[in-house]
Amino acid sequence: MKIIGIADTTFARYDMGKSAIDQLKSMGTGFKIVRYTVPGIKDLPVASKILFDKYNCDIVIALGMPGGKEIDKMSAHEAAQGLIQVQIMEGKHVLVVFVHEDEAKDEKELAWLADKRAREHAENAYYLIFDPEHLQKYAGKGLRQGFEDVGPVREKY
Amino acid sequence: MKIIGIADTTFARYDMGKSAIDQLKSMGTGFKIVRYTVPGIKDLPVASKILFDKYNCDIVIALGMPGGKEIDKMSAHEAAQGLIQVQIMEGKHVLVVFVHEDEAKDEKELAWLADKRAREHAENAYYLIFDPEHLQKYAGKGLRQGFEDVGPVREKY
Amino acid sequence: MKIIGIADTTFARYDMGKSAIDQLKSMGTGFKIVRYTVPGIKDLPVASKILFDKYNCDIVIALGMPGGKEIDKMSAHEAAQGLIQVQIMEGKHVLVVFVHEDEAKDEKELAWLADKRAREHAENAYYLIFDPEHLQKYAGKGLRQGFEDVGPVREKY
Amino acid sequence: MKIIGIADTTFARYDMGKSAIDQLKSMGTGFKIVRYTVPGIKDLPVASKILFDKYNCDIVIALGMPGGKEIDKMSAHEAAQGLIQVQIMEGKHVLVVFVHEDEAKDEKELAWLADKRAREHAENAYYLIFDPEHLQKYAGKGLRQGFEDVGPVREKY
Amino acid sequence: MKIIGIADTTFARYDMGKSAIDQLKSMGTGFKIVRYTVPGIKDLPVASKILFDKYNCDIVIALGMPGGKEIDKMSAHEAAQGLIQVQIMEGKHVLVVFVHEDEAKDEKELAWLADKRAREHAENAYYLIFDPEHLQKYAGKGLRQGFEDVGPVREKY
Repeated sequence: MKIIGIADTTFARYDMGKSAIDQLKSMGTGFKIVRYTVPGIKDLPVASKILFDKYNCDIVIALGMPGGKEIDKMSAHEAAQGLIQVQIMEGKHVLVVFVHEDEAKDEKELAWLADKRAREHAENAYYLIFDPEHLQKYAGKGLRQGFEDVGPVREKY
Repeated sequence: MKIIGIADTTFARYDMGKSAIDQLKSMGTGFKIVRYTVPGIKDLPVASKILFDKYNCDIVIALGMPGGKEIDKMSAHEAAQGLIQVQIMEGKHVLVVFVHEDEAKDEKELAWLADKRAREHAENAYYLIFDPEHLQKYAGKGLRQGFEDVGPVREKY
Repeated sequence: MKIIGIADTTFARYDMGKSAIDQLKSMGTGFKIVRYTVPGIKDLPVASKILFDKYNCDIVIALGMPGGKEIDKMSAHEAAQGLIQVQIMEGKHVLVVFVHEDEAKDEKELAWLADKRAREHAENAYYLIFDPEHLQKYAGKGLRQGFEDVGPVREKY
Repeated sequence: MKIIGIADTTFARYDMGKSAIDQLKSMGTGFKIVRYTVPGIKDLPVASKILFDKYNCDIVIALGMPGGKEIDKMSAHEAAQGLIQVQIMEGKHVLVVFVHEDEAKDEKELAWLADKRAREHAENAYYLIFDPEHLQKYAGKGLRQGFEDVGPVREKY
Repeated sequence: MKIIGIADTTFARYDMGKSAIDQLKSMGTGFKIVRYTVPGIKDLPVASKILFDKYNCDIVIALGMPGGKEIDKMSAHEAAQGLIQVQIMEGKHVLVVFVHEDEAKDEKELAWLADKRAREHAENAYYLIFDPEHLQKYAGKGLRQGFEDVGPVREKY
């Protein structure tokens, strides 16, 4: 039985944790989900650490929605660095699902993007723990989570 | 008996530590507070480390007020990175309460913001140690500490 | 028997992992290749850590293709910092092969650059594990991976 | 008997180490000073580490004077990050006393600022090891080291 | 017998490693030199780690020549952070000798600067291991490696 951690925030304006959990449940069985909600993205590194150490998670999905101001970009950067550190301390993946408020043109698109990106990263998380060689088939294929895949470059040279 | 650490600075222009302590005391009992004041925000990471290691704190609230200049932004960034590192070394939360001097339009608003943000993060700290599942109810709800909550996105799609 | 790890992404728009593997195989024998594909560049640090710890790799080649936007530059920076940390934790090289989408004038050149840089770093990886003194002959020679070598400065002084 | 480390540089244009030592000696007894001079600010993190590990210092005062160019700002940032890391590795304070060349309007003011800031941080260091609760009285009081204190905000709300 | 490590790159356009070695040999005896050449500056942190751990170096001189583009500045920053981390992990100095291509007005000056800075840092390395108190005489004296020393500030106040 694998354990998947969901770390999310009260700062985010969309319940991405719910989307991720819903997607995971649609993909199969053989895992248990532990959810841990913290105030903001800068709390996600320690939330992930706690999910690994106290809840024995095999992988964590960390979801956050930084605002559009300069200070929010900096927070996202600081959180991302911390999340990479946790991963290399643990030797386990944290899939970081950040949706920047200014990526979408309006609230409707923001909700759509947050839901879709959370789901597509939930799929990635599922494959990384149950079938790690699955992603190899898509190496270099220009996949994106949320907006449409851009695909591989056209070469012909 | 839980121990809550308060790390604050002589650089800040508002006694946010006092606000946080006042708020904590209004919320319940079953905890002891240890306060540790240092010169500036860059001293907060080690102050938090000492609060965990020497004073056995279960959580720390780190409060600071960076100035509005470029060099102060950089100090805030360096402090924030260090505070994330301490958290993942300890597996315990440090709630970082920074109020940037240029977030407020005048000194009166600055004082109001510093007090309010300190209190709202003190609440978060209280829940994280006594009722960690409480915050889950607010996941994705667009909460803010200090200024008004922005709320979740309006979807309808 | 040496083990060479290949960490690459589904985000990249060219299969650089394949180029690196092809190049390695053309250079000699005495090694085994383990490939690990992850979603994006920020997953490369933990992928490299796993390749060292679980697959006993002696060296890793980490390949990624950050996009041209500001946020992609930041991701590349965060990934690079994490990849340096993994190396100093392990005392082993990770050759970081990043091709920024905006380095090339069109998709054809991008494909050419991705292939060439991956191959030239695969060569470097080969030398670093089988003949570490080889590179010393080229110290200060202005070598580049991908675009043409710029060569040493012309002095005469 | 406490041991206070002084880490300073040959790059700085004012002998801030001397100011710090002079100030410390004027404040009391019960401590020994160990001084370690390195080339530049980026050497201060390891200098501080050595002062803790080899010379058993209880606290370190790290003094440097970054130049006014972009590259100097980056060096100061890198040094500051390293100095925070040393502190959290050791659980001991390093008071970082940086005077940026462009903080002062001329060389006379630069010398005055370097001397004053070094002395005021030496005082902080003294209190942190001999009377750690002393600073609590000044929490939120808007203290500055070097230029005049800005004081707490005027509230009345 | 002390061991001095030289870590340099094939990316650099001047053989700074040679300058450093030449200078060291002119200064005295009682040491052995180990040289390790890697592709680029981002490989210098692990090269230094290997020089300490596998070759038992007492100090390392890390030499690199970042290009003038934004991406090269970022690489230099990432390398510098990693080199500071290695130092504090080991408690030993790595003297970082970076010559930015855009520091010099032409190739002739670039060669001159690279040679001179490498030599002056080789001197610093020599003193740090054989006579660590030597540098104290120059504390706050405004020394520079490469271009002319700027000297201490003129005070008179």
